[in-house]
Amino acid sequence: MKAVVVRHAGGPEVLEYTDVKTPKVRPGWSLVQVKGFGINHSEIFTREGQSPSVKFPRILGIECVGVVFESTSDDLKVGQKVISIMGEMGRAFNGSYAEYVLLPNEQIYPVETKLAWKDLAAVPETFYTAFGSLKYLNVAKDDSILIRSGASGVGVSALRLLKAKYPEIKVTGSVRKMSKAETLFDNGYDAVVEDQKGKLITSKKFDKILELVGPATLKDSFKHVLNGGIVCSTGELGGQWNMDGFEPIGDIPNGTYLTSFSSGEVDAQKLNEMLTYIEKYHVPVAPTKVYSLSQVKEAHEYLESGHNIGKVVVVL
Amino acid sequence: MKAVVVRHAGGPEVLEYTDVKTPKVRPGWSLVQVKGFGINHSEIFTREGQSPSVKFPRILGIECVGVVFESTSDDLKVGQKVISIMGEMGRAFNGSYAEYVLLPNEQIYPVETKLAWKDLAAVPETFYTAFGSLKYLNVAKDDSILIRSGASGVGVSALRLLKAKYPEIKVTGSVRKMSKAETLFDNGYDAVVEDQKGKLITSKKFDKILELVGPATLKDSFKHVLNGGIVCSTGELGGQWNMDGFEPIGDIPNGTYLTSFSSGEVDAQKLNEMLTYIEKYHVPVAPTKVYSLSQVKEAHEYLESGHNIGKVVVVL
Repeated sequence: MKAVVVRHAGGPEVLEYTDVKTPKVRPGWSLVQVKGFGINHSEIFTREGQSPSVKFPRILGIECVGVVFESTSDDLKVGQKVISIMGEMGRAFNGSYAEYVLLPNEQIYPVETKLAWKDLAAVPETFYTAFGSLKYLNVAKDDSILIRSGASGVGVSALRLLKAKYPEIKVTGSVRKMSKAETLFDNGYDAVVEDQKGKLITSKKFDKILELVGPATLKDSFKHVLNGGIVCSTGELGGQWNMDGFEPIGDIPNGTYLTSFSSGEVDAQKLNEMLTYIEKYHVPVAPTKVYSLSQVKEAHEYLESGHNIGKVVVVL
Repeated sequence: MKAVVVRHAGGPEVLEYTDVKTPKVRPGWSLVQVKGFGINHSEIFTREGQSPSVKFPRILGIECVGVVFESTSDDLKVGQKVISIMGEMGRAFNGSYAEYVLLPNEQIYPVETKLAWKDLAAVPETFYTAFGSLKYLNVAKDDSILIRSGASGVGVSALRLLKAKYPEIKVTGSVRKMSKAETLFDNGYDAVVEDQKGKLITSKKFDKILELVGPATLKDSFKHVLNGGIVCSTGELGGQWNMDGFEPIGDIPNGTYLTSFSSGEVDAQKLNEMLTYIEKYHVPVAPTKVYSLSQVKEAHEYLESGHNIGKVVVVL
């Protein structure tokens, strides 16, 4: 089969499009024919050698969409449309940058959808994270919403999910550089606020806050949540994973709520709920760039250029 | 008027029942005729000289129930039944251990209730804290409930509020010493679990957890909350006010919620909502001991003996 193999850490040039042996099924693992996948920053880090646990040579790729090709499980019929995300694919074992990928049965999720492969390939991880977070935020149509880190992939996905279902809902996005404000308005945000050194430059408060910067700005977010409101801590874009001196009484005002979402816990039901939602409300999920398997190098180069907003995918 | 004055820090013997001048109203302050008040541990600390900001001589007492006697506010009619809690009463200025107390208008809350003075005197602070926390926990009749520190005053009040409205609701109380289990069952708990060095000795999970120990055990409480469940951090009985290394993703499982309650923010509407609830559901609020103003010394001695469960009040 064709695959993209990395034999040692390096720049995009180490992504070698080549012929390798098609993997053979073994008990507990099934073979998926890859139809598409998104390109993720985490794969760039791995390629550069920043994931110490990853041994080369390795086929990268932490997510994919495709069909079951050879199965070892009664729950996975050959030809079944599936999504796989999370787990150790593309790290501890070979991933999705290939025509076929051998995966543990428990991380192969059957899905029902009419989306084209290129659109479906743009959905896992980013939209799933946004969808799961919005679910925990228990959004109602009259809510005022703040997406902290409005320009991020998850942020833009959340905005699209919200606007598709509730066209009138008011969504504010925060940015660290106000030069990005125009881009946020173009993407559909109703208002933009500056996030200056971890402080939002506004006195406004919101019903629901999707906190994608993470622990670095969480306390500040709670200064901007209305009574009865919820903050969902989902991202760690701020590069800080935890907080010292956290004081529930004081940092979480009376009658406001903190929850969190981590895409580490995936379930097929929630994935299908998301796909139903995307089709029902015609959520625009189309990727901004589509490459072929032989162009993974170019896809990495494009993502690294930093010009991208939205999702970059590969379709086979 | 008669009052209980503390002229210098010390044991119960420094509580001097004596005659003092009745305070005179001044702009922004009104005079309340005291009908009763609860005795609190914080007053014992103050009496012992453990509140450095309190200057003696001082009339102690951080809460009271009574009627408006002389008013400087259109919102406070003479004869109006009122509750006062929080603020700096009994600390920065003279408090409720007296026949009359002069209070800032903004901390005098008009209330409507048919409760006897001795019962009403048992309500402020403890029941208000329990009631406010349960509100934020959004309790439904099918919820499984854990009260962490089941023997505490707020814990027992919360249990009574719950059982009065939902006789069938299952409430578990935690205790550090299982020798207290019998007392908890006697008070109406359905189950008792041991809280051993900050870990609950059970694999059970609950819909709603009232966390009265505080930051010291909060992470452990989140190991015992069901999906969609809420933990309300209310107390700091564990003597720890904040947490280091708190990691929202990880410490707060997907789709569970942390909220907090602090009785620092009082409002008349919520106080009246609580009184309506207490009357409607016949919540047993009667104090365990009733003293007169001349017996405040005995009341402190009793509270210090540590035998008490429930509220000790003084009625005038």
